[in-house]
Amino acid sequence: MVLTLSNREQFREAKSRLIALGIDHQVVGTDPIVFQINTEFSVYRPDDLAEKISDLGQVLAHAEKSPLLDKIQPGHEVVVEGNAFSPIRIKNFAKSIWVAGPCSLDEHNDIFETAAFLKKIGVQILRGGAIKPRTSPHEFQGVGREGYQVLQKAAHANGLACISEALSEDDVSDAVKYLDIIQVGARNMQNFSLLKKLGRSRKPILLKRAPGATLREWALAAEYLLSEGNDKVILCERGVRGLERELRYTLDLAGASFMQHRYGLPVMIDPSHATGLKQILESCTAGAIAMGFAGVMLETHPDPIHAKSDALQALSPQSLAKMAERLMR
Amino acid sequence: MVLTLSNREQFREAKSRLIALGIDHQVVGTDPIVFQINTEFSVYRPDDLAEKISDLGQVLAHAEKSPLLDKIQPGHEVVVEGNAFSPIRIKNFAKSIWVAGPCSLDEHNDIFETAAFLKKIGVQILRGGAIKPRTSPHEFQGVGREGYQVLQKAAHANGLACISEALSEDDVSDAVKYLDIIQVGARNMQNFSLLKKLGRSRKPILLKRAPGATLREWALAAEYLLSEGNDKVILCERGVRGLERELRYTLDLAGASFMQHRYGLPVMIDPSHATGLKQILESCTAGAIAMGFAGVMLETHPDPIHAKSDALQALSPQSLAKMAERLMR
Amino acid sequence: MVLTLSNREQFREAKSRLIALGIDHQVVGTDPIVFQINTEFSVYRPDDLAEKISDLGQVLAHAEKSPLLDKIQPGHEVVVEGNAFSPIRIKNFAKSIWVAGPCSLDEHNDIFETAAFLKKIGVQILRGGAIKPRTSPHEFQGVGREGYQVLQKAAHANGLACISEALSEDDVSDAVKYLDIIQVGARNMQNFSLLKKLGRSRKPILLKRAPGATLREWALAAEYLLSEGNDKVILCERGVRGLERELRYTLDLAGASFMQHRYGLPVMIDPSHATGLKQILESCTAGAIAMGFAGVMLETHPDPIHAKSDALQALSPQSLAKMAERLMR
Amino acid sequence: MVLTLSNREQFREAKSRLIALGIDHQVVGTDPIVFQINTEFSVYRPDDLAEKISDLGQVLAHAEKSPLLDKIQPGHEVVVEGNAFSPIRIKNFAKSIWVAGPCSLDEHNDIFETAAFLKKIGVQILRGGAIKPRTSPHEFQGVGREGYQVLQKAAHANGLACISEALSEDDVSDAVKYLDIIQVGARNMQNFSLLKKLGRSRKPILLKRAPGATLREWALAAEYLLSEGNDKVILCERGVRGLERELRYTLDLAGASFMQHRYGLPVMIDPSHATGLKQILESCTAGAIAMGFAGVMLETHPDPIHAKSDALQALSPQSLAKMAERLMR
Repeated sequence: MVLTLSNREQFREAKSRLIALGIDHQVVGTDPIVFQINTEFSVYRPDDLAEKISDLGQVLAHAEKSPLLDKIQPGHEVVVEGNAFSPIRIKNFAKSIWVAGPCSLDEHNDIFETAAFLKKIGVQILRGGAIKPRTSPHEFQGVGREGYQVLQKAAHANGLACISEALSEDDVSDAVKYLDIIQVGARNMQNFSLLKKLGRSRKPILLKRAPGATLREWALAAEYLLSEGNDKVILCERGVRGLERELRYTLDLAGASFMQHRYGLPVMIDPSHATGLKQILESCTAGAIAMGFAGVMLETHPDPIHAKSDALQALSPQSLAKMAERLMR
Repeated sequence: MVLTLSNREQFREAKSRLIALGIDHQVVGTDPIVFQINTEFSVYRPDDLAEKISDLGQVLAHAEKSPLLDKIQPGHEVVVEGNAFSPIRIKNFAKSIWVAGPCSLDEHNDIFETAAFLKKIGVQILRGGAIKPRTSPHEFQGVGREGYQVLQKAAHANGLACISEALSEDDVSDAVKYLDIIQVGARNMQNFSLLKKLGRSRKPILLKRAPGATLREWALAAEYLLSEGNDKVILCERGVRGLERELRYTLDLAGASFMQHRYGLPVMIDPSHATGLKQILESCTAGAIAMGFAGVMLETHPDPIHAKSDALQALSPQSLAKMAERLMR
Repeated sequence: MVLTLSNREQFREAKSRLIALGIDHQVVGTDPIVFQINTEFSVYRPDDLAEKISDLGQVLAHAEKSPLLDKIQPGHEVVVEGNAFSPIRIKNFAKSIWVAGPCSLDEHNDIFETAAFLKKIGVQILRGGAIKPRTSPHEFQGVGREGYQVLQKAAHANGLACISEALSEDDVSDAVKYLDIIQVGARNMQNFSLLKKLGRSRKPILLKRAPGATLREWALAAEYLLSEGNDKVILCERGVRGLERELRYTLDLAGASFMQHRYGLPVMIDPSHATGLKQILESCTAGAIAMGFAGVMLETHPDPIHAKSDALQALSPQSLAKMAERLMR
Repeated sequence: MVLTLSNREQFREAKSRLIALGIDHQVVGTDPIVFQINTEFSVYRPDDLAEKISDLGQVLAHAEKSPLLDKIQPGHEVVVEGNAFSPIRIKNFAKSIWVAGPCSLDEHNDIFETAAFLKKIGVQILRGGAIKPRTSPHEFQGVGREGYQVLQKAAHANGLACISEALSEDDVSDAVKYLDIIQVGARNMQNFSLLKKLGRSRKPILLKRAPGATLREWALAAEYLLSEGNDKVILCERGVRGLERELRYTLDLAGASFMQHRYGLPVMIDPSHATGLKQILESCTAGAIAMGFAGVMLETHPDPIHAKSDALQALSPQSLAKMAERLMR
């Protein structure tokens, strides 16, 4: 963005205002005074920013990269609805929604029992992997699409909504049929064919951030969903790749907070996958709630020794219950 | 660490216990059963971990890299004392201490007035840069060591403790004389000559994490201070380098939480430097407090347009006061 | 891996051998002497490594994560064959194959003319995007699958093989029909449904590394292709995410070299996407060739001002010709 | 930088020229046509770039951050001179200079013998750590400053120049006295007190890049040396932190190449520290030489089992000799 002052006398005012707005800028011309403004380092939408400084002179802005996302209002609410449960309103800076369940469905977790337990402790959405994206082909690949139906039954029988991942375009029709929220996994964040197909559904979509994606790339993946007409988009931070050696990923809470402030979409946090370490889960969950995130997503397994994936990071139901008691208000 | 089971029958018990402890492991031998255990992906000190599994068989551990740090107890308290203020007890999982003040001392901030204001709103430690480490030699380099004395006067006159950075070994004697806490900046985290000299003082040291340092490297920098006899060490996370493009750094709250749990040293969070964006500071500060960090460190400047460094991220005193009112309990 | 010496006297020999092999290790037991060996920091396959030290005592190894990949021999050759061109033998530490062409097919590049030109200067494989994975839905998405056929004609008419990307599972049958090598793009490296489908074809696959993927994750994505029976796998490094600010990505030449040495699959380098800067392309290409990579992949466009994607990094045919003349031997 | 066209008709010409120059830009105004130009994503110095487009209209540029560095000419040569050896001309895109020697001086490496051997195989500069910056205080800290003198004797007796690291400001006077090139280690890249003191000397300085430093920060650290009057600055890439798990660091050859092209200072490559893996050293060295780097820096130790640091990555003299024979021309 380029701002050319109408009037030299406004230099001080312009400078003060840019600093007060926290906008990175350089003076590139002196007669007239011209500011080059780095709009990307800002929580303001380009239009809003232009408006805030338009009285100072001429504002030139470049074409917006995410025009649909830039129309989303702060406080945008994604409502999850169904016959089996009360509507769940997912938005930032409100009471955080709890999502919990096993990483994968398997014969060792009685998902009905888990659902009943989670309902009792205040969880509103049941998660459970049916088709699992696994780093190695030799690892357990999930029970398959039929798991969607099992998950739905367990959730709905207990007044919960359900969420699971669609891994392939072929999964979409079943996912739309059985799930209340469809998850796009981190590894598929830029699987644009899948995004387009999901954008044409009208189901709420939870879009996880790829571990190597910048915030801008994550936003533009959401723009794909919006561009097909689906604005029921929930973002989910689950850790990026960086300096972590002792943890699985680097949980980017500040980056996720930028997304809350810059774009209006609700943002959830998944500390289980991000850290891989159950001992710091409560701290991270408490942080996420205090930061106003729309929800938290946690892994629990009734019998971790038999969990077919992510056993180390899964909380026992008892630990989850204690954590929920301390943190849920 | 290697665990050789005394008895094949204990396999299930060993497996369960390792999973319950959240310890990454692989089975490498079957007759007898041998587990290779990745102790680094764990919040347990090697000795404690060995003890927890020693009943199962023979435990072999490699030499510890941070023997002094591994003796620090959880809940380790760094007490800052002086005649001018009540003792300040800095520790994790207690009430977070607030540290605030301008990035740099300069003629435009009346540090006495700032100190009086900060005292009123509940801040306990006054920060202010006297000698500034700046990325470019053409940027303001600070007022020099005489700033230490000015800072001390302003702080002590108002019942606050003071903290500032020692940039060079030559700064140490003045820093010891005038400051209540001496900061080691992120760029000097592995300036081992400086660390050794500060380790020989008995002043509380705040050790910032370098933007490219792993958690282990940060811990070992603390080990340098401990190895010279100074255990009054406070760690401070201020952002690492990674995928951030819109923010200055990636604030590694989960990594800092690992440090709280793995080592007993108090950990503070500096969201101002980490994010560079005043609009998300309150969220990040709220998160840090909820996560049980020992303190938060914020930049404020009475007249940001004249601030000689970091103007964009400095909060006005009014904004800081409002934030403090909402978050301090 | 755990090595228990048969005999204390072998300590010095064991230590020397591990150091000579460049293997990271710690002594964890002294009676008998036990070494814990970090096999991941090594270019040796676990079996080979075990063999190299098995005379020293008992070696315990954990289950291999990539058993199929570990069977690939050094010097593994992927042969691209067709009626229209001589067989192309792609392997490491041999003459590097040149792959070039436009980022996207579009009406402004006469792909037939480009193909004829590239043939003349020594290029063996014609690249050209038909279906483009673009960060934003508002950017040019490619001409569609019909582009495969156009590309094939242009290539084959000029004695070149052709490569293009399959973005979706739905693209696979056409890709198999028209393309000589099918590319899996960086964003789809862990689109496991796509990998499995391509693994069931018998076409050579070029598997680009995701910008956030570790080397191990990249290897395991190749394992997916192998696990379905396709071992015609070429890896391609195109830049990872990290500290780069002035460049598009960080080109990980040393990491790609590790892949050459640790696994036998041929590795190609794509410096155009990695750097985004045409001025350093020649240096990077020269480096890749000197390092023994199986091939280099470069973008060229006859009329960059009309290129629908990646105009800035595309070389003009003249620049490419000059570069080829200097570097191809 | 902002470019305002004098004339609408020049749009096509302006667009073409910016693309041909490979300069990232956006159109921000249409009447008149205004381009916002991202000068940081470019190998051109701001002045040169402005000149290349100044005929098109009015060019506004912001103040330069590294004015001294921007005066350095391409092909800038750092000449290392002494009585004991022929002058060594260090510059990019010329014959690469070989620097080799042990990581640390210790009683087990006869540095005189090593020097004689290195001389014979074509190495021109002897490296050897006297004071070692070690991650842990419990690791070998080096033989101390007296090592400088030993190193000098060994080098000069054999017609080699010598290089070693100054870790502290207190080391500078001895370093100036005994060394031909003074190394600033990666951990001290932003130890500004040390940089200023070295800038006031007139010795050639080798400035290693910090593992978390952006290219711009590295350039500005060089600007510190220049700002005190010393332009005998050699940059050295030794690996940054990122996705590497199997290697010690990510060797940023493309980033280092950007430095060669954007700034005129000679750049050397240290693949030993960067990768930590002797098996890929030859590939990386061959790449560095082909890319036109001013020199390569390699670790060798006559008796690696007794090396007090970095044993795993040190080449035996025989391996180094073979590598030199293959790569040195």
